[in-house]
Amino acid sequence: MVGGSTVPAEVYRTAREVGQEIALAEAIVVTGGLGGVMEAAAKGAKEKGGTVVGILPGFSKSEANPYVDIPIVTGLGDGRNALIVQTAQALIALPGEYGTLSEIALALKIGKPVVSLGGWEISADIIKAKSPKEAVATALKAIGK
Amino acid sequence: MVGGSTVPAEVYRTAREVGQEIALAEAIVVTGGLGGVMEAAAKGAKEKGGTVVGILPGFSKSEANPYVDIPIVTGLGDGRNALIVQTAQALIALPGEYGTLSEIALALKIGKPVVSLGGWEISADIIKAKSPKEAVATALKAIGK
Amino acid sequence: MVGGSTVPAEVYRTAREVGQEIALAEAIVVTGGLGGVMEAAAKGAKEKGGTVVGILPGFSKSEANPYVDIPIVTGLGDGRNALIVQTAQALIALPGEYGTLSEIALALKIGKPVVSLGGWEISADIIKAKSPKEAVATALKAIGK
Amino acid sequence: MVGGSTVPAEVYRTAREVGQEIALAEAIVVTGGLGGVMEAAAKGAKEKGGTVVGILPGFSKSEANPYVDIPIVTGLGDGRNALIVQTAQALIALPGEYGTLSEIALALKIGKPVVSLGGWEISADIIKAKSPKEAVATALKAIGK
Repeated sequence: MVGGSTVPAEVYRTAREVGQEIALAEAIVVTGGLGGVMEAAAKGAKEKGGTVVGILPGFSKSEANPYVDIPIVTGLGDGRNALIVQTAQALIALPGEYGTLSEIALALKIGKPVVSLGGWEISADIIKAKSPKEAVATALKAIGK
Repeated sequence: MVGGSTVPAEVYRTAREVGQEIALAEAIVVTGGLGGVMEAAAKGAKEKGGTVVGILPGFSKSEANPYVDIPIVTGLGDGRNALIVQTAQALIALPGEYGTLSEIALALKIGKPVVSLGGWEISADIIKAKSPKEAVATALKAIGK
Repeated sequence: MVGGSTVPAEVYRTAREVGQEIALAEAIVVTGGLGGVMEAAAKGAKEKGGTVVGILPGFSKSEANPYVDIPIVTGLGDGRNALIVQTAQALIALPGEYGTLSEIALALKIGKPVVSLGGWEISADIIKAKSPKEAVATALKAIGK
Repeated sequence: MVGGSTVPAEVYRTAREVGQEIALAEAIVVTGGLGGVMEAAAKGAKEKGGTVVGILPGFSKSEANPYVDIPIVTGLGDGRNALIVQTAQALIALPGEYGTLSEIALALKIGKPVVSLGGWEISADIIKAKSPKEAVATALKAIGK
């Protein structure tokens, strides 16, 4: 799951619901481990008993939001975006800025399914979804589950 | 300089002219070191006595195009895109696919000037140029040279 | 946990016991996700209900051994060794070759505790242990648990 | 060339001579771009008209020593050590601490020749040299030049 690190309350709520749906589907939430969409998705997943991986940019696990179970300390800065995309089986993208766009671009480059829930829509290769439930169902279907 | 690894003859010609202009301005060409726009820019730079750095994705310098003076063997795959963007002082973007888009996004994220010469135009933060000469002049001006 | 990717049966057995002890202590096993010591530790941890993170060098989760719960697909090659060391809270080192040595060196560099169970002993900063149980107890003590 | 970032005057002098010899042999000096052995080697190379690549750990080229011609801004922290080793054709190691040891270990792992001039001697695979001249000659011979 990718999206902005500071987002409006509405986007936060949507991200949390996506996290809940992923956990209910017994899938793992993989994010960048920081705030905004990353935190909301993690929080939602924990509310439903899910597992959350946070692939952090810096050199300390203390930068992870409190809902991350498995912090990965990369020290790669924005270079860690490539690891998020490679590790996730599909990308669900919420509204975000250029960091989110770089993740969408990398996912499209390596052929990972990208489902957008109000995020960047710069290519016909991105699948649009209208709700958290639909986004997760679409992503699961795209990876054959 | 970023752009597609396989491009039409017209884009190749433009990239070569950009490389020539960079060399004439006594600046260093930094690219991903492979084919297409990366090769054309490197070729143009060498024609005018310039220096070319190729930040390679794989584990062997043999993947560099023949015009690269300084091959950097990263083994980072697409993760090396972040290094290109961090190392270059400004980004000149020609037409390319999702890899090029990821580089533009990363450059915008960290505040590096992005000059587009027919490439992705997904943000008002990207400066448009109409010719190789104008693109290089604009990039140099943006970094205070 | 670090150590060779192909090891004698005795070292495999020791690594498996270390994995078991880590799981019994309710800690997470972080390894490079491949064979040998990495596989044995993961297998041991799963036998005792533990969780295993595998920080993989390549671009596919299919290279992970079957006991990895959370595969992290870095594509960084040997550069991923730095991520293992940064992510783990302490390093338990079994016999291995130069890759293992590079991990020990990086851990010592950033001040992570290194406990050796028959591995490289190139510094007085490495704490020696005589059994899997002692190695895990020593590592936990070193991180204040 | 690898070695400590803060070293005694004698080691600095030796590193400078190694840099001079590399430049006289018309080879490129590849280092981590910071102080100590990295700076001395760069300084020596520039005194003899050579070219110096500095593969930097941080996010700014301002951390490079003043003798680096081509700063590569990796943002990888200690992970950049793998890039130094992959990019150099052979490693000449002077005295250094654990960072230097990690570079020697990675070079031995991927089969790059390692020539030691008073540095870590943890393997019979490391070739010992007695002077800067001999170290450079040995390294060049090892890579077939």
